[in-house]
Amino acid sequence: MALPKRIVIHELGPREGMQIEKAPIPTAEKIRLVDMLSECEFPEIEVTSFVNPKWVPQMADAEEVVAGFTRRPGTKYTCVYLNSQGMTRAVATQKLDVEGSLSVTASETFSKKNTNRTIAETFAETDRRIEALTQLKIPISEVSVMAAFGCNYEGTVEADHVVRLIDRMMGIARDHDLKIPLIQLADSMGWANPVSVRKLVGMVQDRWPESRINLHLHDTRGVGIANALAAMEMGVDDFDSAVAGLGGCPYAGFKDAPGNIATEDLVHMCNEIGVQTGVHLERLLDVAREAEKIVGHPLPGKVMRGGHLDSYRRKASEQAPAT
Amino acid sequence: MALPKRIVIHELGPREGMQIEKAPIPTAEKIRLVDMLSECEFPEIEVTSFVNPKWVPQMADAEEVVAGFTRRPGTKYTCVYLNSQGMTRAVATQKLDVEGSLSVTASETFSKKNTNRTIAETFAETDRRIEALTQLKIPISEVSVMAAFGCNYEGTVEADHVVRLIDRMMGIARDHDLKIPLIQLADSMGWANPVSVRKLVGMVQDRWPESRINLHLHDTRGVGIANALAAMEMGVDDFDSAVAGLGGCPYAGFKDAPGNIATEDLVHMCNEIGVQTGVHLERLLDVAREAEKIVGHPLPGKVMRGGHLDSYRRKASEQAPAT
Repeated sequence: MALPKRIVIHELGPREGMQIEKAPIPTAEKIRLVDMLSECEFPEIEVTSFVNPKWVPQMADAEEVVAGFTRRPGTKYTCVYLNSQGMTRAVATQKLDVEGSLSVTASETFSKKNTNRTIAETFAETDRRIEALTQLKIPISEVSVMAAFGCNYEGTVEADHVVRLIDRMMGIARDHDLKIPLIQLADSMGWANPVSVRKLVGMVQDRWPESRINLHLHDTRGVGIANALAAMEMGVDDFDSAVAGLGGCPYAGFKDAPGNIATEDLVHMCNEIGVQTGVHLERLLDVAREAEKIVGHPLPGKVMRGGHLDSYRRKASEQAPAT
Repeated sequence: MALPKRIVIHELGPREGMQIEKAPIPTAEKIRLVDMLSECEFPEIEVTSFVNPKWVPQMADAEEVVAGFTRRPGTKYTCVYLNSQGMTRAVATQKLDVEGSLSVTASETFSKKNTNRTIAETFAETDRRIEALTQLKIPISEVSVMAAFGCNYEGTVEADHVVRLIDRMMGIARDHDLKIPLIQLADSMGWANPVSVRKLVGMVQDRWPESRINLHLHDTRGVGIANALAAMEMGVDDFDSAVAGLGGCPYAGFKDAPGNIATEDLVHMCNEIGVQTGVHLERLLDVAREAEKIVGHPLPGKVMRGGHLDSYRRKASEQAPAT
């Protein structure tokens, strides 16, 4: 299949990137990161998460981060929350593009560890979640499946199982007269490969041809960018990623943090293969280098070290003899 | 196109991996690395290079490394040399599978920096090189093009140009009644992308349908594994890589060493998508972790940190309730 002309990148660095960091990051640095990312002209930036600071102390300053950053016209500023308390906090900021997600985890064990609910409990409370979102006038934009390809606790996740979970969630949404425009498939622990991506994406496209698909990929085992390529070749045009490869899930059972795919590496590939992202790569490489300083340790992104090919092309053309 | 059933991986860690390291690596450690790699059952391991120690001091102990390692039946042990002095040294060890390569660089500037010859000089001395190889009874197994996708000094390299270089080299080989079984395309500075890989591979396949293609990929900008996938889908079944992502070229003009694609990440992807490599991944992950200790700094390979999926699958199936 032909590559999409343009993809949407949802930059997660300030949220998923920060939550895994053990050392406290000053609020001012988090704000600076969001503002620097805004200058890269992302269509979407995830700013923070409104969760219980007892479980995720790094996110205790969510309101201050939101108060501090400057909105750029043309960028959607999103956030994460797990319950109605969190969504109320998000709406109260009056500054975010708060959207609703009907989320379920494909692995029972990871569901309990990461969301403190079983899969059955997740479905059981979806009605209540939809009502709470509707009451707060939050548009419900996606159905999301975490651990959609595999789980460190339960092994490979079968595509059939994921389709059944989406089907059930879509059914609940339909009962509430909701039409869900986006289906997110999250490879939360880096189990996907190009073949499994194509299989699951193909099944979801066949079953819900009118829904857009978002892929949330982790580069835990070095295949993340290849997975993004495989998905793009299936027509997927919506991706999550984090600058410099920041991020990871605190409950995935890893010793080292396995990051999201690095945004600048994804943008680099897109630039080179003719897929537009609208993201300013040169500025983003500066942000990636700053992100390393902010967290105080090396991050896995590669183009920030290898360098932007356009800068080499420019130098080469300046040095070439006139013809 | 369907994926190949099996690929050959040429492990370069001991040679290309070591040459870029600034701190001297003890000879015993280099020998240990080769021996550990042998236990992973690679079809091919590049042991060392016979070059002038004035230019590459790390390789001054080439003969000692070769004398020290233990050959494993079923593995081919290769080496690199640039001139007839080097090839004589390689043959004199009587322990390596010395093969001849007719190599040319697609970028004039990189050719001069990396091989100390212009492209014209490279072609001019090919006759002499073939004679020297023939005299030493070294089989000439490949035509190789370095910087086949782009160059940090000269920018993007056009596929047409590469095909012309191969054509010229194949012509010289034909004049000597040689049939060259392998064409190597080396992305020496990490300029390739999945589209340019498919384009060049397709042109080479059309022009030389009877030659096998080897891809030598660097992961300078994070697209290396995606490039390998794109090539495999074109039927390419021969790849260079280095354990843990060791490696890089000292003359590429980078501050940081941009490594080869990490062998264990490539093997991981192959395992998951059903392409056989014959390489023992579990052992290779241990070697990757040892390689970090040997060079004394972190290396970019990912699966060694993320973990072998099979080990998670095993644990998951042990914990699953009996049904």
